[in-house]
Amino acid sequence: MKVGVFDSGIGGLTVVKSLLEHQFFEEIIYFGDTARVPYGIKDKNTIIRYAIEAVEFFKNFELDLIIVACNTVSAYALQEMRENSSCPVVGVVEAGALATCNALTCKDSNILIIGTKATVNSKAYEKELLALGYKNLDAKATGLFVPLVEEEIYDGEMIDAAFKHYFKDLKTPDALVLGCTHFPLISDALQSYFGEKTKLIHSGNAIAEQLEKEFVFTKRYPSPEIKFFASENPEALRNIARKWLGIEI
Amino acid sequence: MKVGVFDSGIGGLTVVKSLLEHQFFEEIIYFGDTARVPYGIKDKNTIIRYAIEAVEFFKNFELDLIIVACNTVSAYALQEMRENSSCPVVGVVEAGALATCNALTCKDSNILIIGTKATVNSKAYEKELLALGYKNLDAKATGLFVPLVEEEIYDGEMIDAAFKHYFKDLKTPDALVLGCTHFPLISDALQSYFGEKTKLIHSGNAIAEQLEKEFVFTKRYPSPEIKFFASENPEALRNIARKWLGIEI
Repeated sequence: MKVGVFDSGIGGLTVVKSLLEHQFFEEIIYFGDTARVPYGIKDKNTIIRYAIEAVEFFKNFELDLIIVACNTVSAYALQEMRENSSCPVVGVVEAGALATCNALTCKDSNILIIGTKATVNSKAYEKELLALGYKNLDAKATGLFVPLVEEEIYDGEMIDAAFKHYFKDLKTPDALVLGCTHFPLISDALQSYFGEKTKLIHSGNAIAEQLEKEFVFTKRYPSPEIKFFASENPEALRNIARKWLGIEI
Repeated sequence: MKVGVFDSGIGGLTVVKSLLEHQFFEEIIYFGDTARVPYGIKDKNTIIRYAIEAVEFFKNFELDLIIVACNTVSAYALQEMRENSSCPVVGVVEAGALATCNALTCKDSNILIIGTKATVNSKAYEKELLALGYKNLDAKATGLFVPLVEEEIYDGEMIDAAFKHYFKDLKTPDALVLGCTHFPLISDALQSYFGEKTKLIHSGNAIAEQLEKEFVFTKRYPSPEIKFFASENPEALRNIARKWLGIEI
């Protein structure tokens, strides 16, 4: 199988990492729209236009599946991508909600969603989780986490101060939805802040979980072919791939 | 006199604030390219193209002067803007270097430049300051300061932790160049961290200082007409204008 992974920038590489661990695909085509990142501050119609352009781009590769690794696109443009694509399209929001459902049997569980302002404002996770029967939902825009990760700060005083800033008035949730592809990089710090009882929902693992259910993978590919495309500044993508995935591209 | 103020986003409003305090202009046209912010991660040629587009936009207003409030544009595209403009164009980098020169008589003074990664990598302030005879220059990309300001965090634990993170190994400079239009919002915290002996160079005040020298302002305008243009998301610009300038637009 051949998959396309779409993200507004570099964050989607954490999803690629999960895909590599699961060895699902023979070939992975990553497209990061680094020229127009961040999507979160754009109008909905602009996001939809960019998402459809990504579908058009992927038509060059005869894909079996497109994974939308970007929370903003998953929240605002998944339907439009599906309408314009000849292959299935899955997104991290749906996958994250389903993974939360698998992790929490009790519908009264407390769920905290964290993400960028755009993702939190979209209420996309809440809509999915409400539809799945959960009611005790809280969401917090944690605007500093992306820049912290991009500064390669994953623990220490800055992270502690940021957690205190955002979380000091919140009760410990049963599940914490990492509603942004950058956040797995600080998942160890988040886990230790909230404690082992809080289940962390990670987009990449959630996608892998969903794929295991919906597709039959007859073969595993330990060394898939991966192609990376960036609409600008490929150097940044190369650096992050080296750091996060440990691969040279 | 009628002035155009160009910025990649909302940060240039701190320069507008200085212009308002000095009551230089009868009319101020602000253009923030909020659809394409941040410029710092773009290629040089892209930045030049956007800057020339801004000059074209300003041609609708018969301006007497264009102020480039964006450090990235000032660093990469000032010359090209001048070549395409029929009115003078001044930028915050040149102005900041001149203001530093006015503040420090001793050429052996230690100067620390802080800014985004793009501004620091451009070495634009260093070039100007070296040409003015200063040699003891240091520069530090402080990537978290813009998101901190955008989260409206101007002091407290997060700021203290960020200062420690970036500055702990640096000696106290004689002058600190605020090489980003967002940074005046944390100038009180910076001043108290470095102490009263460190002179803070603020882009807006630097521009005002340069204008006082280069132009003759025969009249002052306590209530200028101000027009704001944003290429996307005007609501964000409106909110910040309310908060930073205390005006409704």
